[in-house]
Amino acid sequence: MKELGYYNGRIAPLDEMTVPMNDRACWFGDGVYEAQLVRHGQIFTLDEHVDRLYRSAAALSIEPPMDKAALKALLRDLVGRMDDGDLMLYYQLTRGAAGPRKHTFQPAPANLWVTLTPKRVLDKAEPIGLITVEDIRFLHCDIKTLNLIPSVMASQKAAEAGCYEAVFYRPGDRVTECSHSNIHILKDGVFRTAPTDRLILPGIARAHLLSACGRLGIPVREEAFTLAELRDADEIITSSSTAPCLRAGRVDGQPAGFRDEALYRRLHQAIFDEFYARTGD
Amino acid sequence: MKELGYYNGRIAPLDEMTVPMNDRACWFGDGVYEAQLVRHGQIFTLDEHVDRLYRSAAALSIEPPMDKAALKALLRDLVGRMDDGDLMLYYQLTRGAAGPRKHTFQPAPANLWVTLTPKRVLDKAEPIGLITVEDIRFLHCDIKTLNLIPSVMASQKAAEAGCYEAVFYRPGDRVTECSHSNIHILKDGVFRTAPTDRLILPGIARAHLLSACGRLGIPVREEAFTLAELRDADEIITSSSTAPCLRAGRVDGQPAGFRDEALYRRLHQAIFDEFYARTGD
Repeated sequence: MKELGYYNGRIAPLDEMTVPMNDRACWFGDGVYEAQLVRHGQIFTLDEHVDRLYRSAAALSIEPPMDKAALKALLRDLVGRMDDGDLMLYYQLTRGAAGPRKHTFQPAPANLWVTLTPKRVLDKAEPIGLITVEDIRFLHCDIKTLNLIPSVMASQKAAEAGCYEAVFYRPGDRVTECSHSNIHILKDGVFRTAPTDRLILPGIARAHLLSACGRLGIPVREEAFTLAELRDADEIITSSSTAPCLRAGRVDGQPAGFRDEALYRRLHQAIFDEFYARTGD
Repeated sequence: MKELGYYNGRIAPLDEMTVPMNDRACWFGDGVYEAQLVRHGQIFTLDEHVDRLYRSAAALSIEPPMDKAALKALLRDLVGRMDDGDLMLYYQLTRGAAGPRKHTFQPAPANLWVTLTPKRVLDKAEPIGLITVEDIRFLHCDIKTLNLIPSVMASQKAAEAGCYEAVFYRPGDRVTECSHSNIHILKDGVFRTAPTDRLILPGIARAHLLSACGRLGIPVREEAFTLAELRDADEIITSSSTAPCLRAGRVDGQPAGFRDEALYRRLHQAIFDEFYARTGD
């Protein structure tokens, strides 16, 4: 199959797949999700993503319909049905359907949705551009929910400005993260990234960047930085599961970063070495 | 029909209705909605709700698939197909489907969803109980979106405490609104309600309460109040389209309000007189 859709045991080509109108995802965005890469048929960092999914679900009292091992087996089985081995694996748990729409809910097993679509890891030879946008998201960005309108609007604004990402900031100019990436800076040889509080998603690519810093002997400072510090950074790096180590060269149209290429290259190499080593090369 | 589901021209009993998996509501909660009462087959305050829907859509660059007059005609036609004339009319516009999931979007007509389910206006002889909950919602609560997880969780917490509603407050103890209602207080004969800024939904029942105050000669003060002022109010009133004038008697388990029954009764009477007069009595 080229593009697969799965819902509670049903499987069909994605563009033919339907779901019940009464799934609470449809009324409330009432669910949590993960998205990750598959290369050569190998699901990269599956344990970490599934762990985070179950943490997100628990935070919202959403009850997975199966245990982690069963979910992983199912995801591997679905990957095996695809024509291509290089894929985006997306899955979400939504709070069970319930008659007419009503905010309150009864305990019930969540619905499991999966999609598989062709995708390769995103790397860019050219530096990316960033815009900055006020962070108006809800105050539990550590939970990976389907309530994504602020990220959608910021991402669209970035694209319309010819940029790859929108950098969110809270009052006081604290940089939090981007619309679908974490963000980090290098300054005076130190890797600086916001702590994993309620305002950012604990990114799995972020965790791998921190591990790489450890292996490479790069000092790490987990402390939020401001827009001014972002603009003054030696290097600006965004990370996500599909684009684990991008280098930014512009912020709001002004040149930024690009002052410590050697250190950026070492990190980039470490991240991609691990990705290739764990997906069949 | 008893319970109807409509999606882009298709109609079926709600529990049999399906929608495309690729509708952006399913991945991002990427849509806006309205919910309102029908009595004796008459849709109450249709113009106001449709106006608000189109304002919400415009704020998110969602393009309605038809003009307001056509939507109203369609909604009236659907109401006419129902067995019962006392209904909840729910409708939402979601940003058009688009191949594999991606934050950014292309201009496209929105998808129109409608449900109709039996419902009567909610009034309660007994006072309602309230709990208070930190308002962690996104900072554009004036747009009526499908990103409703914080409201779902707060509403559930209220229900588990045996209460009807959860009152949201922001840092500094400013009361904003409830999980699916606006909230107002009476104090020394004055009707006090938060202004319609980005932190609350401009409720249509709220607007009708303000009009009623005008007709009844009750002074109005549109200024946010604190949790302390809520607890010290003479009367506490919640309003929504389905429950336009409820009286609260407890906040977090403590007695509250209930000190100006005569004024509450006048407002309640005015609201219900209008509702019945405009829906066939």
